[in-house]
Amino acid sequence: MGAAPVLSLHALSGVPLVAAGDDLAAIVLGALRADGHDLRDGDVIALAQKIVSKAEGRAVPLAEVKPSFAAQDLAARCDKDARLVELILSESERVMRVRRGVLIVRHRLGFVLANAGIDQSNVDQGDEPVALLLPADPDGSAAVLRAALKAATGADVAVVIIDSFGRAWRNGTCGVAIGCAGMPGLLDLRGAPDLYGRALQTSELGLADEVAAAASLAMGQAAEGAPVVLLRGVGYARREGKAAELVRPLEMDLFP
Amino acid sequence: MGAAPVLSLHALSGVPLVAAGDDLAAIVLGALRADGHDLRDGDVIALAQKIVSKAEGRAVPLAEVKPSFAAQDLAARCDKDARLVELILSESERVMRVRRGVLIVRHRLGFVLANAGIDQSNVDQGDEPVALLLPADPDGSAAVLRAALKAATGADVAVVIIDSFGRAWRNGTCGVAIGCAGMPGLLDLRGAPDLYGRALQTSELGLADEVAAAASLAMGQAAEGAPVVLLRGVGYARREGKAAELVRPLEMDLFP
Repeated sequence: MGAAPVLSLHALSGVPLVAAGDDLAAIVLGALRADGHDLRDGDVIALAQKIVSKAEGRAVPLAEVKPSFAAQDLAARCDKDARLVELILSESERVMRVRRGVLIVRHRLGFVLANAGIDQSNVDQGDEPVALLLPADPDGSAAVLRAALKAATGADVAVVIIDSFGRAWRNGTCGVAIGCAGMPGLLDLRGAPDLYGRALQTSELGLADEVAAAASLAMGQAAEGAPVVLLRGVGYARREGKAAELVRPLEMDLFP
Repeated sequence: MGAAPVLSLHALSGVPLVAAGDDLAAIVLGALRADGHDLRDGDVIALAQKIVSKAEGRAVPLAEVKPSFAAQDLAARCDKDARLVELILSESERVMRVRRGVLIVRHRLGFVLANAGIDQSNVDQGDEPVALLLPADPDGSAAVLRAALKAATGADVAVVIIDSFGRAWRNGTCGVAIGCAGMPGLLDLRGAPDLYGRALQTSELGLADEVAAAASLAMGQAAEGAPVVLLRGVGYARREGKAAELVRPLEMDLFP
């Protein structure tokens, strides 16, 4: 291999199962160390939403949920557990589409996705079914983790919290950023010249979403269990960014 | 840096400006060689749509286009050049949304995107304005290039042709696969167990789209001009895949 990689992604192998109250910064630093990585200015740490949610205690035993009549009605229409639907509604600002087996909502954070991002896959379950909600404030979670990593190592890194969303018009899920700190969520390219000196027509890049998709690719899927990725070589402006930049305001959207 | 990268992306530095009739396989192999890279089984070569379209002669001088009355009417509604709108309509199977400055269509290949993917950014223009259409058959283009790379090197690689699409509900564009060969476009995870042995709820992964987003991230944007990326370490099943797998049939879509 000749020239140095522009971009390298390392899915960390030593991340333990995460429980409520765990210190994510300590877990990330331990996993980096175990794999022989240091942390450098400009690195990006991407984390699967599930471990952030778990650490923040966002698991809810379904037995504790009392579904409203509205949730029961909606559950019948989409053929889902009414307690799960109650949680989905409590996390959402509007219901977008309902079909048998399908419940697409606009999450209170503005994300449009199935089941408000709540799932039961890869959630540690005892005897009781448990649902795992998205972090309450994923941009805030990313900022806290970024500050902790900087305090521990001195390195100025970005943190991206990722999830896998379905998309309109396209089959299959793709990694997207639900939380971001230390880099732009959205990159404004308006006015940047192209190769021929004209202004670019495509003016905004979903930078943190591309980071998320790349990290998702590196994490692999299913039973591999690699929920933290170190990305090195992402060119980005260091600033306080947010994944909220990627959410198109409802009044601007053409596909309500 | 300790453990080997799971995934590395090399944006090739030596890709020349591409003209109609150019041999893309020779261009890719030359750029790989110039950067000191070999090609190995399991590598993925990602190419920006623009260079594929240029090589295939998909540039159309606007002066040669005679807009229909329908195109003129639509052009007035979205405030675009009627000749460009004529080309957009000729590439599309239906108009999805029209606003001032916005024309979102369903491309005849099934992609939902602005302007049928036609743009004038980074297209070599003489005195005449020129529009660049998507490749006529990007899955076919990818298959031809993959075969040529295999013939030249013996390496069994995948090829992904990428473009940047806007998305419903989210700001900013993200790299997506419009052509693919040698790897699955869509990865079926149904039945794969998660960490706790239960079937995954999220059942299909837009694998080639995640490859495209990662490649887009490596390519950088605007004036950097790196339209070919070598990805090493993408785990994929070798098979004849297509980006067409990523297109949700119209009758299955919930956001027409």
